[in-house]
Amino acid sequence: MKVFKIPEATVMRLSIYSRYLHQLMEEGEETISSGEIAKGVGVSSAQVRKDLAYFGEFGTRGVGYKVSELYCQLMKILGLDHRWNTIIVGAGKLGSALALYQGFFERGFNICAILDVNPNIIGNKLGSLRVQPLDQLQDLVEQYDIQIGVIAVPATHAQDVTEQLLEAGVKAILNFSPRVLKVPPDIVFRNVDLSVNLEVLSFNLALNR
Amino acid sequence: MKVFKIPEATVMRLSIYSRYLHQLMEEGEETISSGEIAKGVGVSSAQVRKDLAYFGEFGTRGVGYKVSELYCQLMKILGLDHRWNTIIVGAGKLGSALALYQGFFERGFNICAILDVNPNIIGNKLGSLRVQPLDQLQDLVEQYDIQIGVIAVPATHAQDVTEQLLEAGVKAILNFSPRVLKVPPDIVFRNVDLSVNLEVLSFNLALNR
Repeated sequence: MKVFKIPEATVMRLSIYSRYLHQLMEEGEETISSGEIAKGVGVSSAQVRKDLAYFGEFGTRGVGYKVSELYCQLMKILGLDHRWNTIIVGAGKLGSALALYQGFFERGFNICAILDVNPNIIGNKLGSLRVQPLDQLQDLVEQYDIQIGVIAVPATHAQDVTEQLLEAGVKAILNFSPRVLKVPPDIVFRNVDLSVNLEVLSFNLALNR
Repeated sequence: MKVFKIPEATVMRLSIYSRYLHQLMEEGEETISSGEIAKGVGVSSAQVRKDLAYFGEFGTRGVGYKVSELYCQLMKILGLDHRWNTIIVGAGKLGSALALYQGFFERGFNICAILDVNPNIIGNKLGSLRVQPLDQLQDLVEQYDIQIGVIAVPATHAQDVTEQLLEAGVKAILNFSPRVLKVPPDIVFRNVDLSVNLEVLSFNLALNR
């Protein structure tokens, strides 16, 4: 499949729609309109139709969408018909929380390993994982065919860890450290700054002051 | 200040620009062009100019922006010239990680309290906070004039906690639970699903398969 220039915001909404459809499947719903999806996730129905239109025609006019079919199609678009092997670097509070977060597994991400450099942390148990030393990175990425690396180390070490992940052969990086990182253009890369989300709130609160 | 219909993606980029400017201030930089900001954070320079144009004229043609002035203006736009009192509900792994996350404090969010219903967790120390029982919610929100509530409870309890936060008088909610929640339109609301971020990666990895 070749699809170009899909806005990232659209991809994020597709992810949210697919989650809402899963919730509806659990509740036994069979069909749904774009208006109902829109209401359920809090966007306009024009937005829902526009987002889905990037990927062709899904629904039937006047009938809407079959919940389970649309769910499966969205999961395929999101690359979630495949399971992705993932490694976390940094086993502090945030890295540990990520390693234990059930949502990743449920959506198709296998957390294969978590690494740290701190000898006081190495060997700690996190669910079914044990924290391993960072120098195992290359071996683990090869052994488990790991495609995604998650960076949960302090800002000062983030660029260093990025380069180690790339050298080990990881194809995509999710960065939780609050630092602007340099990666080659062929690597799929995304920053997650937890504060940014709070700042979208404070921006809107400040408008109403 | 009244600014309407600023896209959320713009607000998130303003937050990222402000962080990059702070990094430059630490490095002693005095002026910067939109092209340099763009390069530093990985977007086009047209995007930077467009984002900043929502809020009027900042730079000087041919000279660029004064780093510290642009930083202060962005922080004001983001509502970060003010400190926001914040409460976290749910002291599991994720809630604990959020409570200990230094980035919130650095950007202007005071985590005033963290609550849970589990007697085995209540009383646990997290940095300078102690986990308090959920039934303290109303009192704490009043006592500290808390505006923002962060939901880090299991999906099945999320709607319930939302209603308790609203009843206590919170004006904005950041939801980390993987559930679609109902909130009144006058409440500032935002979902954070940590998996969504991994799914933006898998979407892009799937395109290249």
